Amino acid sequence: MAEIGIGILGGGYMGKAHAVAMSSVGAIFDTALKPRLEMVCATTPQSAERYRAAYGFARGTDDWRVLVNDPAVEAVVIATPQETHREIAEAAFKLGKPVFCEKPLGASLDESAAMVAAAEAAGVVNMVGFNYIRTPASQFARQLIADGVIGEITWFRGEHTEDFYADPEAPATWRTTGMANGTMGDLAPHMINGALALIGPIARLIGTHETVHRARPGGEVTNDDHAQLMCRFENGAMGQMYFSRVSTGRKMGYAYEISGTKGAIRFDQEDQNALWLYRMEGPEATRGFTKILTGPAHPDYQPFCQGPGHGTGYQDQIIIEAKDFLTAIHAGKALWPTFRDGHEVNRVIAATLASADAEAWTDINDY
Amino acid sequence: MAEIGIGILGGGYMGKAHAVAMSSVGAIFDTALKPRLEMVCATTPQSAERYRAAYGFARGTDDWRVLVNDPAVEAVVIATPQETHREIAEAAFKLGKPVFCEKPLGASLDESAAMVAAAEAAGVVNMVGFNYIRTPASQFARQLIADGVIGEITWFRGEHTEDFYADPEAPATWRTTGMANGTMGDLAPHMINGALALIGPIARLIGTHETVHRARPGGEVTNDDHAQLMCRFENGAMGQMYFSRVSTGRKMGYAYEISGTKGAIRFDQEDQNALWLYRMEGPEATRGFTKILTGPAHPDYQPFCQGPGHGTGYQDQIIIEAKDFLTAIHAGKALWPTFRDGHEVNRVIAATLASADAEAWTDINDY
Amino acid sequence: MAEIGIGILGGGYMGKAHAVAMSSVGAIFDTALKPRLEMVCATTPQSAERYRAAYGFARGTDDWRVLVNDPAVEAVVIATPQETHREIAEAAFKLGKPVFCEKPLGASLDESAAMVAAAEAAGVVNMVGFNYIRTPASQFARQLIADGVIGEITWFRGEHTEDFYADPEAPATWRTTGMANGTMGDLAPHMINGALALIGPIARLIGTHETVHRARPGGEVTNDDHAQLMCRFENGAMGQMYFSRVSTGRKMGYAYEISGTKGAIRFDQEDQNALWLYRMEGPEATRGFTKILTGPAHPDYQPFCQGPGHGTGYQDQIIIEAKDFLTAIHAGKALWPTFRDGHEVNRVIAATLASADAEAWTDINDY
Amino acid sequence: MAEIGIGILGGGYMGKAHAVAMSSVGAIFDTALKPRLEMVCATTPQSAERYRAAYGFARGTDDWRVLVNDPAVEAVVIATPQETHREIAEAAFKLGKPVFCEKPLGASLDESAAMVAAAEAAGVVNMVGFNYIRTPASQFARQLIADGVIGEITWFRGEHTEDFYADPEAPATWRTTGMANGTMGDLAPHMINGALALIGPIARLIGTHETVHRARPGGEVTNDDHAQLMCRFENGAMGQMYFSRVSTGRKMGYAYEISGTKGAIRFDQEDQNALWLYRMEGPEATRGFTKILTGPAHPDYQPFCQGPGHGTGYQDQIIIEAKDFLTAIHAGKALWPTFRDGHEVNRVIAATLASADAEAWTDINDY
Ligand SMILES: NC(=O)C1=CN([C@@H]2O[C@H](COP(=O)(O)OP(=O)(O)OC[C@H]3O[C@@H](n4cnc5c(N)ncnc54)[C@H](O)[C@@H]3O)[C@@H](O)[C@H]2O)C=CC1
Ligand SMILES: NC(=O)C1=CN([C@@H]2O[C@H](COP(=O)(O)OP(=O)(O)OC[C@H]3O[C@@H](n4cnc5c(N)ncnc54)[C@H](O)[C@@H]3O)[C@@H](O)[C@H]2O)C=CC1
Ligand SMILES: NC(=O)C1=CN([C@@H]2O[C@H](COP(=O)(O)OP(=O)(O)OC[C@H]3O[C@@H](n4cnc5c(N)ncnc54)[C@H](O)[C@@H]3O)[C@@H](O)[C@H]2O)C=CC1
Ligand SMILES: NC(=O)C1=CN([C@@H]2O[C@H](COP(=O)(O)OP(=O)(O)OC[C@H]3O[C@@H](n4cnc5c(N)ncnc54)[C@H](O)[C@@H]3O)[C@@H](O)[C@H]2O)C=CC1
Repeated sequence: MAEIGIGILGGGYMGKAHAVAMSSVGAIFDTALKPRLEMVCATTPQSAERYRAAYGFARGTDDWRVLVNDPAVEAVVIATPQETHREIAEAAFKLGKPVFCEKPLGASLDESAAMVAAAEAAGVVNMVGFNYIRTPASQFARQLIADGVIGEITWFRGEHTEDFYADPEAPATWRTTGMANGTMGDLAPHMINGALALIGPIARLIGTHETVHRARPGGEVTNDDHAQLMCRFENGAMGQMYFSRVSTGRKMGYAYEISGTKGAIRFDQEDQNALWLYRMEGPEATRGFTKILTGPAHPDYQPFCQGPGHGTGYQDQIIIEAKDFLTAIHAGKALWPTFRDGHEVNRVIAATLASADAEAWTDINDY
Repeated sequence: MAEIGIGILGGGYMGKAHAVAMSSVGAIFDTALKPRLEMVCATTPQSAERYRAAYGFARGTDDWRVLVNDPAVEAVVIATPQETHREIAEAAFKLGKPVFCEKPLGASLDESAAMVAAAEAAGVVNMVGFNYIRTPASQFARQLIADGVIGEITWFRGEHTEDFYADPEAPATWRTTGMANGTMGDLAPHMINGALALIGPIARLIGTHETVHRARPGGEVTNDDHAQLMCRFENGAMGQMYFSRVSTGRKMGYAYEISGTKGAIRFDQEDQNALWLYRMEGPEATRGFTKILTGPAHPDYQPFCQGPGHGTGYQDQIIIEAKDFLTAIHAGKALWPTFRDGHEVNRVIAATLASADAEAWTDINDY
Repeated sequence: MAEIGIGILGGGYMGKAHAVAMSSVGAIFDTALKPRLEMVCATTPQSAERYRAAYGFARGTDDWRVLVNDPAVEAVVIATPQETHREIAEAAFKLGKPVFCEKPLGASLDESAAMVAAAEAAGVVNMVGFNYIRTPASQFARQLIADGVIGEITWFRGEHTEDFYADPEAPATWRTTGMANGTMGDLAPHMINGALALIGPIARLIGTHETVHRARPGGEVTNDDHAQLMCRFENGAMGQMYFSRVSTGRKMGYAYEISGTKGAIRFDQEDQNALWLYRMEGPEATRGFTKILTGPAHPDYQPFCQGPGHGTGYQDQIIIEAKDFLTAIHAGKALWPTFRDGHEVNRVIAATLASADAEAWTDINDY
Repeated sequence: MAEIGIGILGGGYMGKAHAVAMSSVGAIFDTALKPRLEMVCATTPQSAERYRAAYGFARGTDDWRVLVNDPAVEAVVIATPQETHREIAEAAFKLGKPVFCEKPLGASLDESAAMVAAAEAAGVVNMVGFNYIRTPASQFARQLIADGVIGEITWFRGEHTEDFYADPEAPATWRTTGMANGTMGDLAPHMINGALALIGPIARLIGTHETVHRARPGGEVTNDDHAQLMCRFENGAMGQMYFSRVSTGRKMGYAYEISGTKGAIRFDQEDQNALWLYRMEGPEATRGFTKILTGPAHPDYQPFCQGPGHGTGYQDQIIIEAKDFLTAIHAGKALWPTFRDGHEVNRVIAATLASADAEAWTDINDY
């Protein structure tokens, strides 16, 4: 059994999720590399120590350089805010260490371009944290489309909607300033990545965005609360997307609807263990959307449970990511989604923001 | 009991629906005016006679002028294709007869403008067949919004999706040529009217449309299979719409989602007796979308059934229209939605088509 | 076109529903016999006149004998409370007039036995008002089962649940006294008939029932608020049923779940236009319940609407009944469900009540 | 940080689930005791070694006595078939070691009685593996009922339905012989425990059960495929339950519906992150079942994810169990559900089987 020392940057929402994932991924997927929780980094020595004790790391630090440079840290997971991603990743790559970076990849298109360059120059494993596309249901949706089950795609609608900022009294945080932290920066990447993975590259688009609540306790809001776009994919499909953190009532609205010439697929992350499939075949009288409950017949489900319909949850997606990351490291070969995939998402975001400013259809190729 | 002689133009899909509605509306709503099925008109004497006998009209004709001019025909229902609407309506107005016209109002913006002028010059009752907005559920949605239950509207998503042309082997008909008969012309009016009724006037928009299957048995297809738009309402709400007759698997996808600062509403005509309401109040732990089944507590439900949740269907919407039309005639005062409302919808359609050609955001006020 | 004079007893909930049905069934189904609303009967001259005017009958009366004996009344619809069914039906049969009787058939097993005898002696058309089994969805469920699509039936669960008496402050009416008017008498017949129609005869059962709220404004409650039973069908299937008028939150809970060796069916009248079908075929990965929206491909749908998924409602079931009744009269041959079918239901009810008293499994054949 | 050495008996379905749970529970719940995977036991040295390596245990063995007696094993988790539970538990208790035992508690009522006696004599922590009742949704349902939100309970319906034996070609295993391994023995305990936890003790009941497929590849089937019961709870509520492993189409049908005098609750494990709550309050027009998505406001959710609606899955229930077990050990005080609770379930099962034999209502107190 080969062990690998893991260092995680950040101990908040995602830092914890990755620590948990690294604790259990070995038992769940029987990975060739078994992770060892080596070090966690947070902004203060106190919080670092708190995370260390709570999550079971050997050591903690408040200096990311200490973590990245530590010889026992053999792979780096970045779960700190977007502004910090680039510097950390580049340092790790310089040392030849594999990096898993939370979405979005860096705080801007320039940053992600640089990060891709650094990753490719280093030639080490690099991966971005697009977890929602990794549920058994969404992986299966990708398979169905690739297998032509729903024919040529004619239409895509995607949304990533939550309501954690629907209440104007919810206080300002790092998420309320900086375009990389607003809805286009923070939530849209998941669904844009989903769209690219499910349908393929986008050719052109036009978007618009808006700040609904401009002031919050603790500060002004300088980034977008919700945003939308219309697009054309390279394969000709038409599409529409919507992203929001003020979508009252929506808690985890990563949802899509895909129409093809032979069928259709519908999915909503709020019921993440069901995929709806319509096929234009058989007698009209028995056609309809089939509600498929995920189970051992679907990708990456069986290791969690032998029983179909028993269900996976949010944390399990992060465990699937950890498995992919460890698998890539063991094979010495980056696996989808790499930094380049993260950068592709940033290109779409940049094009959307530009199209909103210009109020004009915009080619992705210009970004 | 006052009777009123009804003449219906067309005996197809909608001609029948209106004939049935006029047969039963008196018993259901105990209207002051009780309709008498006086005359039906179709393209041939044979089909006219067939419809007469089947639906219980006193007489049939293949000449719409005969129907409109007949003195026993005291109110006119137009359920023929869009190209015929204007001429018939104008003739009826000249005789001072009330007119109910199926959607869309005429075959173009010019036509609907002329029809509004004719209606207003005649000063008689005029109404357009936007039936979906008349379900108890959608009427209740309008009330909830008007009462401020979901606060200020921030977002609207609407669709009218069906799949009757998803199969490329479905033959060409009058619906496959002429922009008034395509998806923007034929299906979009329902949801655009819905958007205007639920949210208010649209300020500006940008759309795009496409013919997915360009050839069908029996002819080329010269109008759009699906179309989409992004918009901004005058009250500031952002929005998105989609219309399709090739939306595989969707049978009656008149659906909308509305977010407000205090709540949200969701509706899908495929489950037309349920309205979903979220309110941002009470403890977080018991919040969620409430699935309200329509019943006697909701608009225009009780006359159909004393039991809640027992449900109304498609035909019942047309009966509600008939009730409104008869009520308007009896009161001598047009009721919503009038020809002007039909024309407002056509302005949005015209702006959408223009924006698609220009590939640019377009002001509704220019139309 | 042959006309037939219809007399309806009762102008309340169901009297109105049948009046509306008779007004529109001719136009909807193009029946060979076109009904003419000849006479309505209610308890007072005033209410009779009110119903006459509202529903469009030629005449009204407060004496059911006048109606039954009137020569222009050629067919009789009984929509008065259960205690009145027998006397009226027998009188009509003596005159050789076809009778449609609302469920339950009479106020007791003895009554329904007598009514069957009278109907069969007269040799005229007789029918019972089991409307819920007549939705396009439930008719289709029967077809699927008959065609063996779900294999041998192993399990049936049925319920008829509403909540109109969940509130203890809802006042006493005729429904709160007399076992024929309680939940077993008033609501259970629908689902028991459904069970017999879908699965086949019941061999034995054991039930229990209870009055939850024993006093209401206006009087004591002397019949059951809810009841349940377990049973074995003659074909070997096991089953379970529940009936309630105090099922808080349930508005129209006519619902069933059927498991077979090759598939399963689920249905809930609260979403009456959807039937859920599971088939144990094809790869595991794409199996699931298919939500079939009713449409022209399903029984008795097309006359209401050419568009699939556009939906039928409560009133439409009564129209389907009226069509069946008129068709039977025209053919001179009773159609399912006849009085005998109504009596079969009463046998199951009698056995259930007896089993509750005896606290013992009971054979239907003893009743 | 205090560590505790864990020994797990069994490395199959549940052995793995508990191993995973013990790997991550520390990081997720920041438990005072941090588990150390000390030893795993399976039937052969080979399988024991396989599980050891895969799940990350220090050591493996094929002799359960070795595990139980090992001084580094400080707490014992029994995840072997029911026939083995008693002997192992009793040995552990003799050594004063806390025991977590998978459901059902032993292979018979006698066994569970003995196991309770042993546990109570030893005075150590003992717990049974009823995991489904521990989802955030079902825990919240218990709270709502306890808080009186739905008033007095009038009705309970529960089911535990799966279809892993719907296919007659599925081979015989240990689950197809022995009443403790059939549907009443293997699946019913979950829902019976659920019923007791949600509603309270059952007073009397009558049940029936059946083997649908009597022969399978590999052997005859000597236990039940499905079973049902009707019951009366001590608090007066009426109820109905159904259990099946041949419920075609049902994958994880742990589902219940509870009616009270003020509201109702509905839950289906196939959509385990939603709880449906109806309250008889506010205007009729806005009443309906509210679909509550679980989130940080609900029991035991927040440690898994800060985002509401992001969802937990099957494995997370086992982690919650592990947390409860470790908490109990740390506090030195058994937590619900203890062996006694497991025995209460066995009493209901024994009474059900007896009532089926006797074909008679049976008092729980006789068992
Ligand atoms: N994939 C997903 O579902 C989600 C991804 N994210 C992404 O994960 C990243 C982290 O977000 P959250 O966990 O929500 O944030 P958080 O605010 O909950 O936690 C951030 C953590 O980073 C640490 N940190 C911040 N600056 C640091 C610095 N300079 N050096 C060392 N530590 C530092 C803080 O101490 C804290 O522990 C972001 O890039 C975000 O976009 C966030 C939420 C969900
Ligand atoms: N509100 C709604 O839900 C729907 C509205 N419509 C609208 O209803 C109208 C009619 O559509 P459908 O009933 O679907 O068409 P259809 O093709 O089923 O029937 C058209 C009828 O008009 C008659 N007709 C055609 N040209 C005529 C003429 N010049 N003079 C006399 N009769 C003529 C035909 O004989 C036929 O009876 C259209 O404007 C359409 O957009 C259609 C379907 C649904
Ligand atoms: N199939 C279904 O879905 C339903 C069936 N029913 C059945 O329909 C029947 C009527 O019930 P509802 O319409 O709900 O009752 P209701 O109380 O609304 O109306 C009863 C009507 O019968 C009239 N009536 C009563 N006694 C009479 C008499 N001796 N002579 C003449 N008229 C008399 C009353 O004036 C009233 O018009 C019952 O047998 C009931 O079980 C009721 C509701 C639903
Ligand atoms: N809570 C839940 O959701 C579930 C609970 N269970 C319960 O868990 C227990 C185990 O069931 P599964 O994991 O499904 O069985 P399984 O057949 O998948 O695994 C049984 C394990 O026990 C081991 N084993 C059997 N006899 C043994 C012995 N005498 N000594 C040592 N090891 C032995 C086997 O080697 C195997 O590793 C049962 O009591 C069952 O009722 C099972 C499935 C789900």
